[in-house]
Amino acid sequence: MHEFIPPATRFAPLPERFAMKRGGVLHGARVAYETFGQPSAAGDNVVLLLTGLSPDAHAASSPDDPAPGWWESMLGPGKPIDTDQWHVICVNSLGGCQGSTGPASRDPATGQPYRLGFPELSIEDIADAAANTVRHLGFDRLACVVGASMGGMSALALLARHPDLARSHISISAAAYSLPYSIAIRSLQREAIRSDPLWNDGQYLPERYPERGMLTARKIGMTTYRSAREWERRFGRERSGIGDAAFGLEFAVEFYLDHHARRFVRRFDPNSYLYLSRSMDWFDLGELCGGSTAEALARLRVDQALVIGTETDILFPLHQQREIADGLRAGGADVEFLALESDLGHDAFLADLDSFGPPAAKFLSAL
Amino acid sequence: MHEFIPPATRFAPLPERFAMKRGGVLHGARVAYETFGQPSAAGDNVVLLLTGLSPDAHAASSPDDPAPGWWESMLGPGKPIDTDQWHVICVNSLGGCQGSTGPASRDPATGQPYRLGFPELSIEDIADAAANTVRHLGFDRLACVVGASMGGMSALALLARHPDLARSHISISAAAYSLPYSIAIRSLQREAIRSDPLWNDGQYLPERYPERGMLTARKIGMTTYRSAREWERRFGRERSGIGDAAFGLEFAVEFYLDHHARRFVRRFDPNSYLYLSRSMDWFDLGELCGGSTAEALARLRVDQALVIGTETDILFPLHQQREIADGLRAGGADVEFLALESDLGHDAFLADLDSFGPPAAKFLSAL
Repeated sequence: MHEFIPPATRFAPLPERFAMKRGGVLHGARVAYETFGQPSAAGDNVVLLLTGLSPDAHAASSPDDPAPGWWESMLGPGKPIDTDQWHVICVNSLGGCQGSTGPASRDPATGQPYRLGFPELSIEDIADAAANTVRHLGFDRLACVVGASMGGMSALALLARHPDLARSHISISAAAYSLPYSIAIRSLQREAIRSDPLWNDGQYLPERYPERGMLTARKIGMTTYRSAREWERRFGRERSGIGDAAFGLEFAVEFYLDHHARRFVRRFDPNSYLYLSRSMDWFDLGELCGGSTAEALARLRVDQALVIGTETDILFPLHQQREIADGLRAGGADVEFLALESDLGHDAFLADLDSFGPPAAKFLSAL
Repeated sequence: MHEFIPPATRFAPLPERFAMKRGGVLHGARVAYETFGQPSAAGDNVVLLLTGLSPDAHAASSPDDPAPGWWESMLGPGKPIDTDQWHVICVNSLGGCQGSTGPASRDPATGQPYRLGFPELSIEDIADAAANTVRHLGFDRLACVVGASMGGMSALALLARHPDLARSHISISAAAYSLPYSIAIRSLQREAIRSDPLWNDGQYLPERYPERGMLTARKIGMTTYRSAREWERRFGRERSGIGDAAFGLEFAVEFYLDHHARRFVRRFDPNSYLYLSRSMDWFDLGELCGGSTAEALARLRVDQALVIGTETDILFPLHQQREIADGLRAGGADVEFLALESDLGHDAFLADLDSFGPPAAKFLSAL
């Protein structure tokens, strides 16, 4: 598969031997990242941004790459995460396929892509790789670690495993562990990919990409990203085509799913999708810290935290964000918890910046 | 595919030429049904039961077939739908594959199974076929038409197209039209089936059944039948296996999905699944009656109705049952609306009989 690495992306080497939590070692691995804004002389204005499953390191436009990033409205000069003030590092998750070492990368031991030979990936590995990147760039203290969705899990893992690295945290639509509904959804996404004969146990050929499986996987995901209420308001029973005898697309909502899924596939390595997806199922902060979720959260050392979720999120339901807020507060952090009423569900942090921007800006300016 | 027709199932012929709503004609079609309890001399104790997508006509055990039926706890002597009092007719939906004419049936014009040559199926056709069956059995007036899930749609269509047939209605977890979330879920289920190479555009061979696609389709459905809350309570993060490098099953919820999906496939014709699924997407009572949903419901002629839904149903959300209740009431019916708090979601009518039984019994005994 052709790698889609944004042009301003740079690379931080991991230690020559990078041990993975569940076993296995990566040799000569790297993490792709982009930076936005300038570090202060004291290096005390660094914000680390950890992403969801699919985004790359190009969170926003910059002088080196003017193309809009995936969090363009949130990040930049004068924006809620104000790069006139903050030096933001956004990393592509380890195991991803947009520049960081992952299943599509060359295994130095064989000279061939890892594919399913990539070691089992955990959220903790993603967190360790991100922490390594921060240190490689010369910083040993973050003003804030920001994580949304899977990135919120990675941020919690980072706080647990690198307790002195960050002094504050913004947690967005995240969770301290995966619940069975989200595990089930991801299991079905993986099943869709694995069922595509072209996937070929991971050995798919670039010219025979398992598009069918990836499309279905993405569409299954999309049924959990917004909310039934938003779709009802937006699509209702609108038709965009004529139903045919072969059960093709007819309703607007079907075309919407298809359109967005097609924009996603072929840019993403199916094996990387499988690894990242499974890492989320496995994540359990309590298990990681050897105690209950509440105990594990209370042990995390941050001074301030902002925890945001939306009432309509079915993938990372609101009670999981409340749990993070309560746990961090029990540990002594000064925590603000925001339950947004947006009908944009899990995607609200990407689609409803009017709701997410101001509290994030206020939180950061008070640091 | 081998047809799984329960042993006590009987067959009612449809008119030699049965015209379908969206075009096309069935010749010599039939409807599979079972009856429970005895008709009164006056024939005034007849209850018609219309089913969801997958159940057959064997709703409960009977002298002719002691095997438990799909609504065993609800139907029988002394049960909520008391067959000591009521003569219950349960029909297998037209287009189904458990005895009624459907895509797996032989097309008399070719001598071969219809497969995708079956005419486009609508909920209205299912309703017409059921009404025909009632009349074939010698009844021109039903004490009650009971419909759950898709069967509730069929019941509304029957009330609209056969206005003098039923004097009361029990509507369970139903809807007057499909919303985009449920359309999306069903579209993905169909995509999973259609993507299975063994489906072969409907021409699958009995010995090469598209099991993979049907399993995925059923599992996608199952993510909408219960509720995230029930799964959280029931499975949490329990493991039932060991995760392997090939992304096999590990969490209890994954095994649950797989186990139940395997019980379903191979007993159901994939083409039938596609037709029934699409008929639900198309259903829109307002469109059928040429007006708004509220107007269409208010035009239905029933004296009494009981409308039940559950707060956790994501496939047929509660506001759709409230809409049915409000609409029937506006038309002059004496309507009881029950919003159950069960965490069993759309499946509550199958799994939480303690909640559904008593109100149904009370409603029927007051007729």
